[in-house]
Amino acid sequence: MLHQWHGTIDLIRRALAEDEAAADATSGLLPAGMRGTAIMLAKQNGVIAGVEVGLAVFREVDLDVAWFASLDDGTRVEAGQHIVTIKGRLASILRAERTALNFVQRMSGIATATRAYVDEIAGTNAALIDTRKTLPGLRLLDKYSVRMGGGRNHRMSLADGVLIKDNHIAAAATIRETIADLVARARATAPHTVRIEVECDTLEQVRQSVEADADIVMLDNMSIEIMREAVSMCAGRVLTEASGGVTLAAVRTIAETGVDFVSAGAITHSVQALDISLDVTPDGAGA
Amino acid sequence: MLHQWHGTIDLIRRALAEDEAAADATSGLLPAGMRGTAIMLAKQNGVIAGVEVGLAVFREVDLDVAWFASLDDGTRVEAGQHIVTIKGRLASILRAERTALNFVQRMSGIATATRAYVDEIAGTNAALIDTRKTLPGLRLLDKYSVRMGGGRNHRMSLADGVLIKDNHIAAAATIRETIADLVARARATAPHTVRIEVECDTLEQVRQSVEADADIVMLDNMSIEIMREAVSMCAGRVLTEASGGVTLAAVRTIAETGVDFVSAGAITHSVQALDISLDVTPDGAGA
Amino acid sequence: MLHQWHGTIDLIRRALAEDEAAADATSGLLPAGMRGTAIMLAKQNGVIAGVEVGLAVFREVDLDVAWFASLDDGTRVEAGQHIVTIKGRLASILRAERTALNFVQRMSGIATATRAYVDEIAGTNAALIDTRKTLPGLRLLDKYSVRMGGGRNHRMSLADGVLIKDNHIAAAATIRETIADLVARARATAPHTVRIEVECDTLEQVRQSVEADADIVMLDNMSIEIMREAVSMCAGRVLTEASGGVTLAAVRTIAETGVDFVSAGAITHSVQALDISLDVTPDGAGA
Amino acid sequence: MLHQWHGTIDLIRRALAEDEAAADATSGLLPAGMRGTAIMLAKQNGVIAGVEVGLAVFREVDLDVAWFASLDDGTRVEAGQHIVTIKGRLASILRAERTALNFVQRMSGIATATRAYVDEIAGTNAALIDTRKTLPGLRLLDKYSVRMGGGRNHRMSLADGVLIKDNHIAAAATIRETIADLVARARATAPHTVRIEVECDTLEQVRQSVEADADIVMLDNMSIEIMREAVSMCAGRVLTEASGGVTLAAVRTIAETGVDFVSAGAITHSVQALDISLDVTPDGAGA
Amino acid sequence: MLHQWHGTIDLIRRALAEDEAAADATSGLLPAGMRGTAIMLAKQNGVIAGVEVGLAVFREVDLDVAWFASLDDGTRVEAGQHIVTIKGRLASILRAERTALNFVQRMSGIATATRAYVDEIAGTNAALIDTRKTLPGLRLLDKYSVRMGGGRNHRMSLADGVLIKDNHIAAAATIRETIADLVARARATAPHTVRIEVECDTLEQVRQSVEADADIVMLDNMSIEIMREAVSMCAGRVLTEASGGVTLAAVRTIAETGVDFVSAGAITHSVQALDISLDVTPDGAGA
Amino acid sequence: MLHQWHGTIDLIRRALAEDEAAADATSGLLPAGMRGTAIMLAKQNGVIAGVEVGLAVFREVDLDVAWFASLDDGTRVEAGQHIVTIKGRLASILRAERTALNFVQRMSGIATATRAYVDEIAGTNAALIDTRKTLPGLRLLDKYSVRMGGGRNHRMSLADGVLIKDNHIAAAATIRETIADLVARARATAPHTVRIEVECDTLEQVRQSVEADADIVMLDNMSIEIMREAVSMCAGRVLTEASGGVTLAAVRTIAETGVDFVSAGAITHSVQALDISLDVTPDGAGA
Repeated sequence: MLHQWHGTIDLIRRALAEDEAAADATSGLLPAGMRGTAIMLAKQNGVIAGVEVGLAVFREVDLDVAWFASLDDGTRVEAGQHIVTIKGRLASILRAERTALNFVQRMSGIATATRAYVDEIAGTNAALIDTRKTLPGLRLLDKYSVRMGGGRNHRMSLADGVLIKDNHIAAAATIRETIADLVARARATAPHTVRIEVECDTLEQVRQSVEADADIVMLDNMSIEIMREAVSMCAGRVLTEASGGVTLAAVRTIAETGVDFVSAGAITHSVQALDISLDVTPDGAGA
Repeated sequence: MLHQWHGTIDLIRRALAEDEAAADATSGLLPAGMRGTAIMLAKQNGVIAGVEVGLAVFREVDLDVAWFASLDDGTRVEAGQHIVTIKGRLASILRAERTALNFVQRMSGIATATRAYVDEIAGTNAALIDTRKTLPGLRLLDKYSVRMGGGRNHRMSLADGVLIKDNHIAAAATIRETIADLVARARATAPHTVRIEVECDTLEQVRQSVEADADIVMLDNMSIEIMREAVSMCAGRVLTEASGGVTLAAVRTIAETGVDFVSAGAITHSVQALDISLDVTPDGAGA
Repeated sequence: MLHQWHGTIDLIRRALAEDEAAADATSGLLPAGMRGTAIMLAKQNGVIAGVEVGLAVFREVDLDVAWFASLDDGTRVEAGQHIVTIKGRLASILRAERTALNFVQRMSGIATATRAYVDEIAGTNAALIDTRKTLPGLRLLDKYSVRMGGGRNHRMSLADGVLIKDNHIAAAATIRETIADLVARARATAPHTVRIEVECDTLEQVRQSVEADADIVMLDNMSIEIMREAVSMCAGRVLTEASGGVTLAAVRTIAETGVDFVSAGAITHSVQALDISLDVTPDGAGA
Repeated sequence: MLHQWHGTIDLIRRALAEDEAAADATSGLLPAGMRGTAIMLAKQNGVIAGVEVGLAVFREVDLDVAWFASLDDGTRVEAGQHIVTIKGRLASILRAERTALNFVQRMSGIATATRAYVDEIAGTNAALIDTRKTLPGLRLLDKYSVRMGGGRNHRMSLADGVLIKDNHIAAAATIRETIADLVARARATAPHTVRIEVECDTLEQVRQSVEADADIVMLDNMSIEIMREAVSMCAGRVLTEASGGVTLAAVRTIAETGVDFVSAGAITHSVQALDISLDVTPDGAGA
Repeated sequence: MLHQWHGTIDLIRRALAEDEAAADATSGLLPAGMRGTAIMLAKQNGVIAGVEVGLAVFREVDLDVAWFASLDDGTRVEAGQHIVTIKGRLASILRAERTALNFVQRMSGIATATRAYVDEIAGTNAALIDTRKTLPGLRLLDKYSVRMGGGRNHRMSLADGVLIKDNHIAAAATIRETIADLVARARATAPHTVRIEVECDTLEQVRQSVEADADIVMLDNMSIEIMREAVSMCAGRVLTEASGGVTLAAVRTIAETGVDFVSAGAITHSVQALDISLDVTPDGAGA
Repeated sequence: MLHQWHGTIDLIRRALAEDEAAADATSGLLPAGMRGTAIMLAKQNGVIAGVEVGLAVFREVDLDVAWFASLDDGTRVEAGQHIVTIKGRLASILRAERTALNFVQRMSGIATATRAYVDEIAGTNAALIDTRKTLPGLRLLDKYSVRMGGGRNHRMSLADGVLIKDNHIAAAATIRETIADLVARARATAPHTVRIEVECDTLEQVRQSVEADADIVMLDNMSIEIMREAVSMCAGRVLTEASGGVTLAAVRTIAETGVDFVSAGAITHSVQALDISLDVTPDGAGA
């Protein structure tokens, strides 16, 4: 699915530039013509994502690179499993190696963590969603990786949904405006294709949001009991999203309150890279 | 120290663009003239880094933003402590908030983790260093954050040092070249300002590297006993860097082998974001 | 509101570069120190938009430019009215002139056309909205100009709403999927912050969309009678957007069918630039 | 002639980025493997331009796109006529559709309008030329489209010709310099490859310009009689360009004064997009 | 005249990025707060150009830099003369030093060489002009430097003049077209603001060009006698430009043939950098 | 070896953009379909470098270009020798010609000059190295060209080595710090992969540097006798680099002092372009 990555080529170029791949002081020690085979290998169990981004790194360094037998993104892997085989000039492969792995390890790390959350809430009504707590420049890849782990995406950007947060509510209050006023103004001015969500800390705010005909309420840092009550206030009328304190340990209990969505910042802001390595064999080795 | 960030302004612009900050569907609900004060606040103990990068985000959105009383990068903070105070248009602050925090939370997360490793090996001979396992586009900021946590930097890029790795050695072997041949060629062709490091998996490779007059040997995934032996082979002649399996639990034992450097990939490839929030008060609130 | 334009500085630079403003063969004929005053002047009635983008062009060419007394964007102007006064180096003003006017004339042209449509449907239930038929690179400015003319924005991009069009429906049909299947899949996979709109050519499709619980139906190129019927099928359940054949002459009749939104491509894809000129007086002239 | 577009690939990328084509919330509803055929179709009579720019958009989204049987740019089309056929992944085609059409519709709109002006003055001595009133970032494409409509280009940028305008003349006057002084200085300092044109509002200015040996006089907003007189003052010595008030209705009368060039800003600053649509058929449909 | 450099800021950023100024391993050894004064000093006689570009480099690294008493570009300097004084953070000054000097030394080198040619042909009819043999990315700065040395500019780019060269003439000949055909087609299709120049190797070609009413003939690599004859064939009708073999030793003899222009590629393609250094004094030194 | 140039494609695009290759006013005079053959030809003896960069320029203008029989970079050529043959659309070849030659002529000029220095010091102990006195944006290509001429590279950037210069030493002195303090701090803070070099003007500084265990001393502008003495102070302990006043005439005498490296700024800051031309033959010519 390399055709999807049209937006990432600049990012790949910047990554190679900051690694000064074109001025690599080591790979030039090898004969220019030497070719080899590299196997990208999982060293941990997890879910793979970003294989084709990784391949695009190799091809940006050297168009004359071929690959075979890749697993599709979203597949579970076990330690020791081959992910993809790459063939080409050895010096090019070694130049691109670290940059390629930096992409694939993060993306697979996100997919793996997401999958753990998604599995944990299997059977409940809730869907696991991400946040805008992604890394600068990596939003598109981070959110793609969440989908590969079985999660869904919250808004891509500030333009993709109205989300009235505590700070907006507090600001409006200083000019004696209520949640209802803000929702009404959003309804009158925002693109009609986006929904209006209100971040609520209290049941009173939930009540106001429901009455204001908000589309979604975010139940922020509520206790499980309060959250359950909030869900029942909204039931059938307004979608509910649980947010705050969403750890892997807590997520099932939260999901069982009946919320429609649980959003987890940690799956993108605190990523454990999946351990993946590149085993390289020069052509002719072992002969 | 905002004068240091000349290289990051493009990254900040890309981050704001991918968040479509200029098309924020929510902040326009507030009156255009409304101003306010935002306090960046630690919600966890840790080490701060990236404050001025965060401020640069606010200023990129709106030049008319002022700030006060920032802690310097590298300072330890406790949960509840104020990091910096920002004053300006409320809509601008809210537009920039998430992007600014995404930078500061990652950078502080790196500084905090680094500091933990550095504290753990206090009193040994070893310095804690990073790797090239940084995120695409964030190399400069990641490595700066390591320094703020008391760590030192390994090479910035492929151009900043010769590092002959297992794959290079294996490739050379297919044309009957040894570690000594590779070191000699590096000595004859690489910039004379960079050192030559050899990744060694065995004591035999360490021996060859010492004889080849390498500047540094990387002791890769060795047991503690083997590592201790390797250190004594190198003592006084070649610098030693321990690498592989460097967890917070293991780092002191590793450092006590007498190595000069311990490199930890996890401090940049698997970052726990430091929990930091922005408390916003509209001017006139509470009056 | 110059603080809003953080996203446009690159566009301004590209515009000045393609005009080779730095290699202007004419303005160098004037003495380097000569200063002057320029008045941006409406030569037609209309609605002003983009004044600060225009000013940013002058400031990009020469930071030492001052301005006074600008009308706010969104204001109606009459032929002959002053919009803004600019003071600075004469050569800089002349270098920037055409590029600045190219921005302001298009943006004001969009605002003016939008205002005409909005005025035409005053008193009906319908809001006037734009489309994605904007010019390459100018999406943000085009959509801003629509708002300045009193219109509202449709989705900013393909990420800001699900819009199932005739081509999607036809594609799904080949694998025996219905509108209901598409809406259900969108509901299950798209960000929960965006609404789901279905483009309908027939009442049958409207019926299916309503039953599928779509959020919005687009009534595409329907006759007025059919449209009225469609509106009554949707009433109170699904939002309606009229699209296709929306001319200034037709818009009121369309709006009076009771639709919630009328989208007009022409206000951005076929813009009449508002006639605006720059009257320049050298300092000391007329003395 | 795709080989000509090397300058436009960045513009295409920016256009796709602002449309967030990589995060399209709708096209992912279709099966990833589904392929189809799209026919770009004129819905109005006109002149086609920009076909290959449109194709480049599709190929930027997905390299695996093929096309057939395109009309050449500059060809007249009638409503209903096929312009080009595209085959590839359906999701890719739908992602690229709007961006591709935004290019082709504007470019064809310019070619069509230009052709109307050019036809109107057929048989006179005058050539129809454009201005620098193009849209930011689109100068190259706008001017190319004018040529495809049978028009000629005025200068591409401020570097491609000296054009002494009313503002330059007024500025020079404050230091007691005349048109002759400005022309002489331009002759002495500007690149010898560009001509010197003087914008004249009066016959007196025309007389001065002719005496100053200007290469071209621009007859700006003159009445037909005055213009005719100006032409005879210049005949055989200085080229003449009519400018100002050049509508389709007026252009023939203006051309019949004997001027060498008539410049029309409207063909680029106030473009009617040519109505063009994309008819998409999934492979296997209708089987 | 910093206001002229709006086009060069990106080039400056790229230059600092390739020098990794933000990761300077040395300047961080000095205390962060230490300030100092730097004097840019000529170490050779010559003509200064690019001072403000150099200053812009320092300001890009650190906005908090002040400067005093600069000589204007185009001024002759003698060895030992101060060009400009800069005050600011010492680490910032040292980080920017090499990049700033790389700009100023090349630009002054071009101005100096140009001035030598210009002085050599003083009193003749000929003007000294440059070519498009400039360095990639530096066209604007190279051509500006030529003007600072008293030279004039040939066309800035392929768009700024028609220049029919030997290769064009040979290509036309294969379809039985003559110089006259090419000139006529250029007259009919090129922007009317640019002149038409024909490169001639022989007197026969000069004759054809004059008859074809070309605006300029380039006398390419002709002997002095032939050139003199060519000039007399053109006199009063067509401008003449001598090209090829234009060394400092030969330029006066060439100019004395009566040509209007002599173009010298060497002043930009083979530049001797002017020797300029930066003397830095820490504040408090010598106290 | 086109696969190495991944970092230069942006530079090539900028070069073509500044030459407005897409708006070439001349090459359009030829029939669009006409094809031809171009031979890149040395007109001077020298060493070739940059052939593939030149080819990349042609391919950026027109993908449909083929080439044959290129000499490898680093090869000596004699006047009249063919370097590479290019086949493709004539108009495309002519559009790209000047930009391609501007790259190849500079790069070959650097390789040629470097080779002259390298040959001059053949048989001595010294290696010829470059400096950071390269042109803005061209660092990578300039340093590559030096290698093609048989030279070696000094540090690529400020990040690739510690170089304590006179200005750093003077600054440290104001706070009573010595060379030993600076070296010690560098040893404690700089990446362990880079060496520490100290610029020395006097033997006393050399002595201090040796005692401080610096890795390299730069002998700056020393007389031959002093330099010889310095070399003997360093022998076997510290590498030595001669710098300053390194002309082709002086380089052998300097090298014979026994220094390890001689650095020459002139090979990159004052480049004589190698004379190379492009001979173009239209297909069908000469038939």
